[in-house]
Amino acid sequence: MTREYSVAILGATGAVGTRLIEQLEQSTIPVKNIKLLASSRSAGKTLQFKGTDVVVEEATPESFDGVDLVLASGGGSVSARFAPEAVKRGAVVVDNSSQWRMNDDVPLIVPEVNEADLKQHQGIIANPNCSTIQMVVALAPIKAKYGLTRVIVSTYQAASGAGQSAWQELVSETDAHNAGKEMHAEILPVKSAKHHYPLAYNLLPQIDVFEEDGYTHEEWKMIHETKKIMFGDKNSKAVKVTATAVRVPVPIGHGETVYFETDAGSGATAADIQAILSEAPGVVLEDNPKEQLYPQPINAEGKRETFVGRVRPDLENDDSFHMWVVSDNLLKGAAWNTVQIAERLVDLDLVRVPEDAANKFVTA
Amino acid sequence: MTREYSVAILGATGAVGTRLIEQLEQSTIPVKNIKLLASSRSAGKTLQFKGTDVVVEEATPESFDGVDLVLASGGGSVSARFAPEAVKRGAVVVDNSSQWRMNDDVPLIVPEVNEADLKQHQGIIANPNCSTIQMVVALAPIKAKYGLTRVIVSTYQAASGAGQSAWQELVSETDAHNAGKEMHAEILPVKSAKHHYPLAYNLLPQIDVFEEDGYTHEEWKMIHETKKIMFGDKNSKAVKVTATAVRVPVPIGHGETVYFETDAGSGATAADIQAILSEAPGVVLEDNPKEQLYPQPINAEGKRETFVGRVRPDLENDDSFHMWVVSDNLLKGAAWNTVQIAERLVDLDLVRVPEDAANKFVTA
Repeated sequence: MTREYSVAILGATGAVGTRLIEQLEQSTIPVKNIKLLASSRSAGKTLQFKGTDVVVEEATPESFDGVDLVLASGGGSVSARFAPEAVKRGAVVVDNSSQWRMNDDVPLIVPEVNEADLKQHQGIIANPNCSTIQMVVALAPIKAKYGLTRVIVSTYQAASGAGQSAWQELVSETDAHNAGKEMHAEILPVKSAKHHYPLAYNLLPQIDVFEEDGYTHEEWKMIHETKKIMFGDKNSKAVKVTATAVRVPVPIGHGETVYFETDAGSGATAADIQAILSEAPGVVLEDNPKEQLYPQPINAEGKRETFVGRVRPDLENDDSFHMWVVSDNLLKGAAWNTVQIAERLVDLDLVRVPEDAANKFVTA
Repeated sequence: MTREYSVAILGATGAVGTRLIEQLEQSTIPVKNIKLLASSRSAGKTLQFKGTDVVVEEATPESFDGVDLVLASGGGSVSARFAPEAVKRGAVVVDNSSQWRMNDDVPLIVPEVNEADLKQHQGIIANPNCSTIQMVVALAPIKAKYGLTRVIVSTYQAASGAGQSAWQELVSETDAHNAGKEMHAEILPVKSAKHHYPLAYNLLPQIDVFEEDGYTHEEWKMIHETKKIMFGDKNSKAVKVTATAVRVPVPIGHGETVYFETDAGSGATAADIQAILSEAPGVVLEDNPKEQLYPQPINAEGKRETFVGRVRPDLENDDSFHMWVVSDNLLKGAAWNTVQIAERLVDLDLVRVPEDAANKFVTA
């Protein structure tokens, strides 16, 4: 008999949360019943799951009694508080926040890349940062054949990566500017930061807060998450990774220019890389300069795949290439990757907390 | 007695042309009289120079009789036709098109970087591509002290780089999209190309046409112009340069993420680089993460300087750094650099065509 799952979505009312509901509806997961959880502010709202009204409840530790699977997208502090409570109650948590990603007991998963790491889970599985996911989906099949020693990425990140309110702010600012009025910024680049700047018709080279070394936390995440996902060690020295993250006035769909070096003497050509990408899982190769075919955010919106184009050799450095990568940051970058992880957990019959792990993440 | 100059502006009615007039008005050049030249379509319009009405004339070869100095921004084919005619008549041409940049008899000038090359001019001086100029202004003072062996740049280029009409198209598309209407694209990415795509709320990884090797001509220009300006040879092997050029939905102000390697063992630190940039001509260092201070296009608009921030070391590659560079593409990227070249020609008393060069650029 097929096992059916009691599923809870934590943070159900946000930009990612509403997409988690949609992606779960379209998934292969047999859902026995669904709980939609959010903060007290959103509790009482009615949303739909597969055509049925569901009232959003305020999340409490007891919300997770009887739940098998939690899809969490309520932000870091929400996951810090509730993920251990859910695991304690026997639920497996797939968490879209950055809270647990660097924990050595938490697999950080992109199914196309490191599905095998799911087997080691102790109750929490982390979903990587949006800009990391689309990059590793494109790089992993290349690494598998030709090795990977260096990555330099510059991001062009959409407003919705900072949530529904940042996306709305971009549209309001744009309307104001086009009407000759002043733009008001209250959310970007970082809601909690001291200064806020308009994104409309502008570029903001700050995503998340600054670290002491001059990198932003977003850049730090791309570096260490890429190493953990692709090389099994968040501080791996087998690959050099550097990122510059920039917010651009686009609502949905992150772009990335990715420079990468394969193993010295790999012998790879651009045609080899294109051939690999054309067959890689989760990748759509859109690469035909003659026909002006290349990935664009407006075409990627609403799709689950990662789109890759502009694949070409570095003209002066051997075994090195450039490419342009675009994906819907709310789907493959968040909701779809989370549901995809859950699908794989179901398929592999891994929706259970190991006996000795129930209190692993609970702090005193 | 101070020499006064008869100046012609070719392509006076475009986005750059109107700024050429403004920058010339504000310059130190003693202007005896001014001619505003354009295509027959714009002839008859009235513009102002220093408060006086000037009627735009249709450019013909004879327009340049008696002219000392031509500031040209009418596009490649216009410069191909008229620059030789102007030089033949004794006028020195500072040309903002790409037509003459790679010609070995034409100095390609960014005054802060290679002013000395002006002395070799044969009647035509070329103004580099907008995205090249701001990058070399930032890199040159670093190279002077620590050397420069490699550059990888990703651009975030504004719509106005493709002219006034592209900029207007961005605004119209944005209005349409915000009103729930369909967007119509007729100009970007390249007016003469087969396909046109909306830029509003989108990213277009194509600027100018594609070359056979998969690079766009814009990327090709950044590579070879950087080598010619900074290393005196458009094919110099002393430095590796690669570019990816992306159009972003910003009206004015190009952004660039620039990765660069100084000489092996240079010993440079990020603080050293910042110190150099804080005193470099034409550069404003805006680099204080604690105060969220970094360059933004909306702050650079209307300014002549190149703004640099986010200076930080590559964490895994010695002697290597990243920075973020922003400048007004219509000013330092075009009109101001052109007028600045003209100012230097005047100061160095170089506004004269060498005797043996009068027919140098005329084709049979």
